[in-house]
Amino acid sequence: MNKSITIYSLLITAMTLLLSISAIGQEKEALEHNSILFDDATIAQVDEAMDWPLFRQSLEDAREFVDEQMALGIDVPIPKDLAGGYTHERHKLNYLSMQQAGKVFVLTGEEKYAQFVKDMLMTYAELYPSLDRHPSRKSYSPGKFFWQCLNDANWLVYTSQAYDCIYDWLSEGERTLLERELLRPQADFLSVETPQFFNRIHNHSTWANAGVGMLGLVMGDTLLVHRALYGLEEDGLDADMKDNDGGKIKSEERAGFLAQLDLLFSPDGFYAEGPYYQRYAIYPFVVFAASLQNARPELEIFKYREGILGKAVYALVNLSDADGEFFPINDAQKGMSYYSRELVSAIDIAYHFGGQNPELLSIAQKQNTVLLDASGMHVAADIANGKSKPFVHKSMELRDGADGKTGGVGILRMDGKASSLSAVLKYTAQGMGHGHFDKLSLSLYEEGREILQDYGVARFVNIEQKDGGGYLKENQTFAKQTVAHNALIVNKESHFKGNTDTGNKYHSDPYFFDASQEEIKIVSAKDQHAYPGVEQHRTIALISDGLFEKPLMVDILSVSTATQNHYDLPYYYFGQLLSTSWDYDIENNLTPMGDGHGYEHIWAEAKGKTEEGNAAMTWMDHDQFYTITSVSQKGDQMTLARTGANDPDFNLRRDPLLMISRDAATTTFVSILEPHGEYSRVSELSKGAFSEVKEVQIVHDSEAYIAIEWKHETGQVYRLAIAKQSNDQTTSHEIKVENQLWDWKGPYSYIKK
Amino acid sequence: MNKSITIYSLLITAMTLLLSISAIGQEKEALEHNSILFDDATIAQVDEAMDWPLFRQSLEDAREFVDEQMALGIDVPIPKDLAGGYTHERHKLNYLSMQQAGKVFVLTGEEKYAQFVKDMLMTYAELYPSLDRHPSRKSYSPGKFFWQCLNDANWLVYTSQAYDCIYDWLSEGERTLLERELLRPQADFLSVETPQFFNRIHNHSTWANAGVGMLGLVMGDTLLVHRALYGLEEDGLDADMKDNDGGKIKSEERAGFLAQLDLLFSPDGFYAEGPYYQRYAIYPFVVFAASLQNARPELEIFKYREGILGKAVYALVNLSDADGEFFPINDAQKGMSYYSRELVSAIDIAYHFGGQNPELLSIAQKQNTVLLDASGMHVAADIANGKSKPFVHKSMELRDGADGKTGGVGILRMDGKASSLSAVLKYTAQGMGHGHFDKLSLSLYEEGREILQDYGVARFVNIEQKDGGGYLKENQTFAKQTVAHNALIVNKESHFKGNTDTGNKYHSDPYFFDASQEEIKIVSAKDQHAYPGVEQHRTIALISDGLFEKPLMVDILSVSTATQNHYDLPYYYFGQLLSTSWDYDIENNLTPMGDGHGYEHIWAEAKGKTEEGNAAMTWMDHDQFYTITSVSQKGDQMTLARTGANDPDFNLRRDPLLMISRDAATTTFVSILEPHGEYSRVSELSKGAFSEVKEVQIVHDSEAYIAIEWKHETGQVYRLAIAKQSNDQTTSHEIKVENQLWDWKGPYSYIKK
Repeated sequence: MNKSITIYSLLITAMTLLLSISAIGQEKEALEHNSILFDDATIAQVDEAMDWPLFRQSLEDAREFVDEQMALGIDVPIPKDLAGGYTHERHKLNYLSMQQAGKVFVLTGEEKYAQFVKDMLMTYAELYPSLDRHPSRKSYSPGKFFWQCLNDANWLVYTSQAYDCIYDWLSEGERTLLERELLRPQADFLSVETPQFFNRIHNHSTWANAGVGMLGLVMGDTLLVHRALYGLEEDGLDADMKDNDGGKIKSEERAGFLAQLDLLFSPDGFYAEGPYYQRYAIYPFVVFAASLQNARPELEIFKYREGILGKAVYALVNLSDADGEFFPINDAQKGMSYYSRELVSAIDIAYHFGGQNPELLSIAQKQNTVLLDASGMHVAADIANGKSKPFVHKSMELRDGADGKTGGVGILRMDGKASSLSAVLKYTAQGMGHGHFDKLSLSLYEEGREILQDYGVARFVNIEQKDGGGYLKENQTFAKQTVAHNALIVNKESHFKGNTDTGNKYHSDPYFFDASQEEIKIVSAKDQHAYPGVEQHRTIALISDGLFEKPLMVDILSVSTATQNHYDLPYYYFGQLLSTSWDYDIENNLTPMGDGHGYEHIWAEAKGKTEEGNAAMTWMDHDQFYTITSVSQKGDQMTLARTGANDPDFNLRRDPLLMISRDAATTTFVSILEPHGEYSRVSELSKGAFSEVKEVQIVHDSEAYIAIEWKHETGQVYRLAIAKQSNDQTTSHEIKVENQLWDWKGPYSYIKK
Repeated sequence: MNKSITIYSLLITAMTLLLSISAIGQEKEALEHNSILFDDATIAQVDEAMDWPLFRQSLEDAREFVDEQMALGIDVPIPKDLAGGYTHERHKLNYLSMQQAGKVFVLTGEEKYAQFVKDMLMTYAELYPSLDRHPSRKSYSPGKFFWQCLNDANWLVYTSQAYDCIYDWLSEGERTLLERELLRPQADFLSVETPQFFNRIHNHSTWANAGVGMLGLVMGDTLLVHRALYGLEEDGLDADMKDNDGGKIKSEERAGFLAQLDLLFSPDGFYAEGPYYQRYAIYPFVVFAASLQNARPELEIFKYREGILGKAVYALVNLSDADGEFFPINDAQKGMSYYSRELVSAIDIAYHFGGQNPELLSIAQKQNTVLLDASGMHVAADIANGKSKPFVHKSMELRDGADGKTGGVGILRMDGKASSLSAVLKYTAQGMGHGHFDKLSLSLYEEGREILQDYGVARFVNIEQKDGGGYLKENQTFAKQTVAHNALIVNKESHFKGNTDTGNKYHSDPYFFDASQEEIKIVSAKDQHAYPGVEQHRTIALISDGLFEKPLMVDILSVSTATQNHYDLPYYYFGQLLSTSWDYDIENNLTPMGDGHGYEHIWAEAKGKTEEGNAAMTWMDHDQFYTITSVSQKGDQMTLARTGANDPDFNLRRDPLLMISRDAATTTFVSILEPHGEYSRVSELSKGAFSEVKEVQIVHDSEAYIAIEWKHETGQVYRLAIAKQSNDQTTSHEIKVENQLWDWKGPYSYIKK
């Protein structure tokens, strides 16, 4: 036998071995129970799924994580620590690794993974009967493994999935033991034994409902599922009971998952606290719904309330900028995006169960991971088959409130030749404890960059140096205050005098929204409660026109009141100031702008006054130019300012703002923001460094109408009129401008002359 | 004849036509003169070159530009405007489009491009005899087409290339006419008629030398080439003559291109003004050198002064961060990089004529364009053939001064497990008018991000709103001053009391440089002139160690003096302060830190005093953590500050700094900067948010030695000692630390215990 033949036969032998190993690994059986994660059709596709790169990669990542965890051995410590401490983090890693191990077992058939889950569960089952509630009593509902039931509910949501994966593989005796000693007791603990946690209309309770319900589905226990869907019939909860954040426990008569679906989302899928918290809350919603659809398809949960779950996912994705980062309204840390773990679940589940919109696939591709279940397989398969289409962010109005009648948020998107703008006008309800005093506040984006920013939250989540990663006191004293927003402040006081309870009673009102036109997208809203006796009416339009390289943003803010007031209107920009059309005096020593309502956190850097006409300011950020041109009255005060005063722990950013101030009763603020030109640091050439917007003026201002005009530098005239007292689509209006009749139908008119 | 046959034969006809058109387009002939851009071998490859994507794309881009310009028609206006005005920009576009059109002609054979160049030159030839110098007299040497000869010399450098391209195509009569009426007169104008422009040792004159020499090469005029290489023998220039920036005209006896090569670069290829200006200056050097090599290869210009031109290109590229952006030492606008037009020429020419280093190809790939000549073809071909290798930035010391004896700059690079650091220690000469008062100043980069920044220039080049794009007064009052740098300030005065003439007399001195070790890269330099009677000695080391994810930077700054002084040592960081180990009082009203030498531009935000031991500060930037731990004496003042005071036109950025201050005579400042950990805004998890450097201390400090020690949190001890009075590599040293002998050979010792 010569040498090359030897090597050749060795190779053959090795390959045969490899093939047989992988064949053993891939023996799958049909499901013997109603799985919450898989169906028979999916299981039959597992071998094929290894050809779909995203699925294969996701499985490899999971296996790597689980292998690492398995190598550490099983540790189920007696609960002791708070978040960040060992026992807390260990129990968290335990449920995460059980869930992943279970899925890897189903997908590969390798029993060591099932064994790991079983061993872990048995260890928990041994410990469980001896456990009282967690020794820390910081929570209104202390858990067993964790300091709060919220984490225990997380445990059950993940563990139910792990149990589902090995359910068929366990003997009946093993199942009986686990269910009797561990799983049912934990489900009862989170529900009947802790009604103040289970029976709320609150994202905490969604986790509890989901955990109890998912376990019920796996075990085929209809009573548990019923409890999850409808809540506890008798909870004996006191109407005045509050949680440890001061939130009311009992706000509604109903409870359970279906009630959460009815009450936590608006009819458009908007979540009262905003996208940052919606991102966190969405996971138990979609994962329990997917479980119901897999195990109890006859419920048609994805059709519930006209498909509210799908709407919630789309609302969330559309509440993000061009890069997928959520608009940071209310308490929101910037940078959170659809790349988060929760959105991977939401996108995959919405795709699989919600009509297979190919645009969702492009988001899944960016996420670069899929769920290891039927929905993730479906997504990975369809991406592999080339079905993905780019996701297009849409202009949309999202109503707020369970009935859709407590205001809303308007999102405008406009493409220009050189870039796209997104504007957000917020006229929602307060948004509860995490809400900001930001009625009719505005934010503006060019592509994925903030042009007029919402400051977001004053918090560095999980950064221990910053007060343990919790909310900082500057969140209350600055970030929540009206002056921290691109919103009107009357007499230097925040909306509702900064009182959340008052704020919770009111909401702003949509006036009109129209994204149906090519050249203009426009939203208009009113508020009459933030300042008693003062009606604010703000209209934001994005306008695309052939003479401009980029869209313009028009901002018309009318204030109606019987009393003389001081108004401040900040615009929070980014970057380097290049020029102002007004003269100002620079401050040689900086002092804070006030002593309350957030003013104490702003340094005034320069102050000037305008003449009647236009006041324009140009700045530069990321090598792009921006000019805001405002209609000015003689004596309007223009303050160039910066955040960061009275900030002993350096908790605030040092961000610039322009504040336009006026003493008046009824009045109107009009500004046009033009993004223009660009600069190259390599060629050192600037293009279009000057604004082409000229002569912005109010051409009509009455109780019934406001009309403005501006020009392109070529002389082209543009006009926009708003009917202030009727948003009816069919009502006819007419005004005279320069002795010419201007008539139109509906709440606004945009014309070029 | 059925339909499909008809279509088929139509297609055949169309393809035949296309092929014949492209064949016509590709008829090239051998060169009939010594071209400055091409050689016969290159011309023979032109058809093949269309298969090299980078070359094809570069040609298409050039053709598009030229077609646009040709569509506008020929306009050679009577010179009138300054930079930015119509006639200035038109003449500039004229020479750019002639150059590109000439090259497109050579490469495609399409005569319309040659015709365009000829028509343009003929129009110039008609106008030229009637032209006096430009009406503006702002320059010390007004041009003909432009307000300064510098732009006229640019014109000649580009036009010579255009002329080269159509030289063979023109009739002898046409050549005679153009040379008599336009080209020779312009060459004489820039040389014999303007000796103050031609005969300097200055980048202005390099352009003049190059233009005159390149024209001479095209025409085969050895006298012009000799004039370009050696300058004017008699220039009659006054020794005290100055240019309009106050620079001396006559600083050296020699002139001409070879003298520039000898005198403008250090033996290592460093250019006195720094990389930002070197980038601008390099173009006429490399393009004239390439012309000489093409037309007069026997001169072997690329071997001149031991290959100084190649060294200059490598020096420049190595004076950039991981993204190719130049270190912004001296007057330098940030963001300028090897993506600039000049570097495209430099890289292609250095590759073609300088030994074909495959690492240069990766830069050309990033530049995504090549020159349309022999060098660009060579680069494109070798990239297409897969020869490119990643460019690795090297640690290196670059000596300053024509003789290499006026200081230098040390660049350290260190790879860690999680990221790479680059540190720059500057101990050059002043760098003439664009030099900053920044002896022994430090800057630090992690990958392409600035960690300890050099502020750069206070100028927004070509941004008209900022004083026409010129140098701003804050460049003098702040950016040039010592306090704008990570450098020691003694008694609140800048180096040389901020006097450039004094600064030009002195330089700092290299002490040692060692990049040969795996675990430590180290540079050490001294200065004894910035402050008379004060010797500064600064050593910077980058240290890589298995216990740390990222390299550490060690900074040891010893000051020796007989007098009691006040010392300030700023560290300009970026991002959000997270914590300090010392207590401080926040300023409720901000006042500038001083009234001169740049201090008037800095707001003090918080002041505190240290105890003896360590003072540590942690911050966060781009979701990475950084901690600087300094050895502190009791009573060191720590000021948290920010730039931007006394800035009436908002010309300065608002950047943070930590300033360490101490009143002492001889003393030592020791700091260790550790980049560590990372944060995710999507998972909201922070990893490694705390420094692992503990107990930094000075374990020996004498006239002869400084030795420090620090620990990793595991207890691992590291020590670094510097011999302060001997940098000899072979000298033996010994000190006692904790009663143990520590001996070594050479200027430093780094040990782990």
